[in-house]
Amino acid sequence: MSLENLYVVKIGGNIIDAEERLLSFIKEFALVKGKKILIHGGGGLATKLADTLGIQQQLIDGRRVTNAETLKIVTMVYAGYINKTIVAQLQSQECDAIGLCGADANIIQAHKRTHPSIDYGFVGDIDEVNAERLMKFMNSGLTPIIAPITNSSEGQLLNTNADTIAQEIAKAMSRYYDVQLVYSFEKSGVLLDSNDDTTVIPSMNHSYYSALKEEKKIFAGMIPKIDNAFAALDSGVKKVIIGNAEELTSLINNTSGTKITNE
Amino acid sequence: MSLENLYVVKIGGNIIDAEERLLSFIKEFALVKGKKILIHGGGGLATKLADTLGIQQQLIDGRRVTNAETLKIVTMVYAGYINKTIVAQLQSQECDAIGLCGADANIIQAHKRTHPSIDYGFVGDIDEVNAERLMKFMNSGLTPIIAPITNSSEGQLLNTNADTIAQEIAKAMSRYYDVQLVYSFEKSGVLLDSNDDTTVIPSMNHSYYSALKEEKKIFAGMIPKIDNAFAALDSGVKKVIIGNAEELTSLINNTSGTKITNE
Repeated sequence: MSLENLYVVKIGGNIIDAEERLLSFIKEFALVKGKKILIHGGGGLATKLADTLGIQQQLIDGRRVTNAETLKIVTMVYAGYINKTIVAQLQSQECDAIGLCGADANIIQAHKRTHPSIDYGFVGDIDEVNAERLMKFMNSGLTPIIAPITNSSEGQLLNTNADTIAQEIAKAMSRYYDVQLVYSFEKSGVLLDSNDDTTVIPSMNHSYYSALKEEKKIFAGMIPKIDNAFAALDSGVKKVIIGNAEELTSLINNTSGTKITNE
Repeated sequence: MSLENLYVVKIGGNIIDAEERLLSFIKEFALVKGKKILIHGGGGLATKLADTLGIQQQLIDGRRVTNAETLKIVTMVYAGYINKTIVAQLQSQECDAIGLCGADANIIQAHKRTHPSIDYGFVGDIDEVNAERLMKFMNSGLTPIIAPITNSSEGQLLNTNADTIAQEIAKAMSRYYDVQLVYSFEKSGVLLDSNDDTTVIPSMNHSYYSALKEEKKIFAGMIPKIDNAFAALDSGVKKVIIGNAEELTSLINNTSGTKITNE
């Protein structure tokens, strides 16, 4: 059975810090027809602000350890500055955007991460996405723009990985839509040579991915993204595309980027 | 004709900076039965952050002059930290809150203030409140929590007075509801002696207000609030109450605070 299309787009990486490139992405996103949800990362602004304020940042396995001061900063930067900047720009492009964090309208239920040896601080892991609430927003003409901040049932705000939020939203929405999940960033797709943007792999299935990983031809930073992509496909997402945020239209039309498939 | 009740509550002043008092207000607000909207101010946190970052603040007639750096700060603090802190706490109190700035779902249309002699910077004046959208949210079980940031049709974020937002929302919602507008803060109401919290004026009509103003018995900082209150009554708001944020229930039940009336 074919359902209505839904595009779940993650925007991340350096694009968010580069005003002109972010605006160019926003214009592309506004033009996407039909139902769509945007999840944005934080970019470098939070780190920069923490540095200016003299708050020490610690990363473990690429995840920021979030102490109380850092939580305040990421909440301000992600759910405040970045989220509202994107929403206001989309409104000016005739896209009726609504900025949300996981706490708003209870769209994401999460809990503070527990780990046997590492204390990640105020970091959230997702329990459930309220797909029905997001559907209601979209059915009333709104486009959800989601910041990577969630909350526990005790009211504690939590810093949460934006890729994971995109994946969980895509999976939850697959009950109601044919979901295309787009991971967009500053690169043109999954590259055979991470320094050469012309070496985009147009399509990748699981066996090809395993072979490339074995030959160490996949850039380490891409591996969690690709693993997430396959996990999303296994959970009902129809298509996952990885590519350049400023080429969103051609990513969606399959004329650029890397398509991850289960075929 | 009697319409459904709607409480439009403004929370401001030092309460927002005092974590325990804010939590106590949030608990009171969560308990208010029926439809409700909360508008929050910014408190001192934005000024404190600007100080720490070495950004000079300038005030003209009690209004912050908002340069680009200050706009970034108030957007982060008001629409990010304060808004999401309140929303997450309300969610933990079983109140299905949704945090919004004026740009979100286009709930407030505004423009950059123009003034013949003073350049207020990125400060917004309100053109229109989207009452129908707010009503839709409430009819689907959501409680809007509104940060004092709006946007122009060109996508420019704008710093906007929270008292004014509360007044404009109360006025716009009066088409559909019997609106009670509550200005809540750290004082017990309009005081005859601004240093003595037991001198609350329980009820004030326009002629009594004029008399008190003539005798200079109204604290200067209260005058814009009270002028706003009478303007709101003239525009269809049923009742305006001014009083202590931590006594919200008794403010609504008319057992504390100052009731402003047209009678």
